Amino acid sequence: MRLEIITIGDELLLGIRENTHLTYFGKQFARYGQIIQRNIVIRDDPNHIESYFRNSMDNSDIVITTGGLGPTTDDITRETVAQVLGLKLIHDNEAEKAIRTRFRSMGRDVTENNLRQAKKPIGAEIITNHHGTAPGLWLQCEGKIIIMLPGPPHELYPMFEKQVVPRLQSENVISENEYYLQLRTIGVGESLLENNLQHIFNRHPGKLLVSYCAHSGLVDLRLSPIDDLLSWKEIEAIGDECKQILGDDFICYGDESLSSLVLNQLSSLGKTLAIAESCTGGLLSNAFTDVPGSSKTFIGGFICYTNGTKLQMLNIPEMILQQYGAVSAECAVAMASGTAERLSTDYALSITGYAGPDGGNKENPVGTVYIGYHSPVEVRSSKIVFSGNRLMIKSRAVSAALDLLRRKLKIVN
Amino acid sequence: MRLEIITIGDELLLGIRENTHLTYFGKQFARYGQIIQRNIVIRDDPNHIESYFRNSMDNSDIVITTGGLGPTTDDITRETVAQVLGLKLIHDNEAEKAIRTRFRSMGRDVTENNLRQAKKPIGAEIITNHHGTAPGLWLQCEGKIIIMLPGPPHELYPMFEKQVVPRLQSENVISENEYYLQLRTIGVGESLLENNLQHIFNRHPGKLLVSYCAHSGLVDLRLSPIDDLLSWKEIEAIGDECKQILGDDFICYGDESLSSLVLNQLSSLGKTLAIAESCTGGLLSNAFTDVPGSSKTFIGGFICYTNGTKLQMLNIPEMILQQYGAVSAECAVAMASGTAERLSTDYALSITGYAGPDGGNKENPVGTVYIGYHSPVEVRSSKIVFSGNRLMIKSRAVSAALDLLRRKLKIVN
Repeated sequence: MRLEIITIGDELLLGIRENTHLTYFGKQFARYGQIIQRNIVIRDDPNHIESYFRNSMDNSDIVITTGGLGPTTDDITRETVAQVLGLKLIHDNEAEKAIRTRFRSMGRDVTENNLRQAKKPIGAEIITNHHGTAPGLWLQCEGKIIIMLPGPPHELYPMFEKQVVPRLQSENVISENEYYLQLRTIGVGESLLENNLQHIFNRHPGKLLVSYCAHSGLVDLRLSPIDDLLSWKEIEAIGDECKQILGDDFICYGDESLSSLVLNQLSSLGKTLAIAESCTGGLLSNAFTDVPGSSKTFIGGFICYTNGTKLQMLNIPEMILQQYGAVSAECAVAMASGTAERLSTDYALSITGYAGPDGGNKENPVGTVYIGYHSPVEVRSSKIVFSGNRLMIKSRAVSAALDLLRRKLKIVN
Repeated sequence: MRLEIITIGDELLLGIRENTHLTYFGKQFARYGQIIQRNIVIRDDPNHIESYFRNSMDNSDIVITTGGLGPTTDDITRETVAQVLGLKLIHDNEAEKAIRTRFRSMGRDVTENNLRQAKKPIGAEIITNHHGTAPGLWLQCEGKIIIMLPGPPHELYPMFEKQVVPRLQSENVISENEYYLQLRTIGVGESLLENNLQHIFNRHPGKLLVSYCAHSGLVDLRLSPIDDLLSWKEIEAIGDECKQILGDDFICYGDESLSSLVLNQLSSLGKTLAIAESCTGGLLSNAFTDVPGSSKTFIGGFICYTNGTKLQMLNIPEMILQQYGAVSAECAVAMASGTAERLSTDYALSITGYAGPDGGNKENPVGTVYIGYHSPVEVRSSKIVFSGNRLMIKSRAVSAALDLLRRKLKIVN
């Protein structure tokens, strides 16, 4: 089943808006065992839409378009697709009724432009839009399926999930079942991970789709069957085998964040946590507070961005700063313990380092980060040197700190 | 000049990674007066690369590919493109030297796989990769320009900006000048903004391209000439007219962040800043510390995520919490003043509210945020109710706090 997505909009090609539709559809189809063959992003130009839509029709079995169904003059997808397929546009009374009802509920008048949205290529079925005025369209033509959907995500997503997915399932285009297994890992790079696991994957040539995604120091590994050649049980067995080999570098199945994972573990142990950050400047704290309900476990943090604030906030002995400097194992440990003492928590993490672009020295160049760890039974620090720019160093340092805590807590998933 | 981007990678079509390359290239080319005609996202599959690359060659003058230049077996862009063009792959000694030097500096051995990256289609020129091992390639063939670039952004971006842009300028593909004017605004929504400014734009029908992008409470407005029908001077005059109408809602020309803007202003006044955050939990602090050199002005912050930490960290009178609660104007002001006093800064900001999904009450539902402001001459608070999910509320509250400080500092751009 060859599936293509055509995304229409100048603003995507001008870099003004990200193409979140692709990420959305990619995830949705992968869930049901399909991979999109191609995504084309093109301009709001009738000639472009015409020629590229024709090209997609020739190359695939299902074509989904997004955007260009609205009421304004640059919304031309409906008209252009009808023209390419040689289909007359006709008026749909049900669609008009839905548009009128929606406008009435908003207390607004229906203009001539808005009624243009009630038109459809002959033979097409209207997909009702419960969150906007532009209906979607489902059309079977030349032995292919064409689905036209509106661009705004809050209209597109519910329309796709509630109306298009069930229809695609009943047409046997996508599976009734969800279809991939994700293993979240940390500590091994993408290529080493591939090396270590390749012998497992080699046992299923042509049957197993493996993909990797590295982000902020983590690597996600996704396993899915090709053309249903492996059962879900077999996929799970392969996942378990990978997990055994990964050992402590395996974080979890699925996509739970490191911060959510450690907060849940601490919460189930009835323990509290606080942090102190220097070079990551709030990013670690933000990772914890992104998790709903985190305040039960994560009670607070100190952003001590200068030597002065380290002394004032955390009572760090001045001698440590003078003798070892703020970027040192000694300072990281003092920050963690100082935090736990100040806020009377069981656990504390700290981060101090050089995020760049300036700072650093020969012994501790830009990218050097010390992580401090304080628990009821132990105090320690760990030194890591990251590459990348300021924002990458901050983000990797945060993942490393969360991972240190995860390993110490021996979280088993 | 027809320009196409081919982005290669299963992970994009599986929804594992966002297609940030398109946003990046879109912005880069728009800066120099070009719009990308089409972006194609395709799989790591030699047959797909072959047929879609051929199709792009036939449809355009410049084809840029990203991804698939690395050392692993699924990196096949170089080989496939050479094959489509009927060009032999040859070994490049300079490229090999660069790869060997890079591995030596990392203390790693060069494998046979890595040396595959020193190959190039005959006639191609190597584009040195200063941040990774896979070099880029520049190739002129069939009267077209083909540019192959590595996928990782920290390798791709500097390679493109420092080596490809100047080359494209010298080949007269892109302008020597930047080509759009961006006005950053806050305080008015996208459609109200359009309404207020439409009468200006209406005076230049068919000559002026106007586009909007809303993010975290800000709206960026971009003005560019269509087909060179307006001079840069005319565009600037239109920009100034918009700026007059926008008044204080105009932030700046360009894309400087609010945090960078207020830090620069405080720095030029020789003033210091500290913050206290409850519901935004580190995100405001992180916005400041994303700015290189911020530690001269932003000295630190308190993440006081519970009532207990508000008392401990900031000496907030217990009566305030008992009488008004942690989410109140009184608490926001006490947090800001407590912070400024504790850390002896000139300015302080605070944020307290309900980010959801739980919490809130009838008077202050989820989304309610109080911002506290402390300066050498004034203390005040402001209440805003945001819609959206937890992460959106956090992010909008941070923009609102930064904007409050910006308005108070009367920054003129």
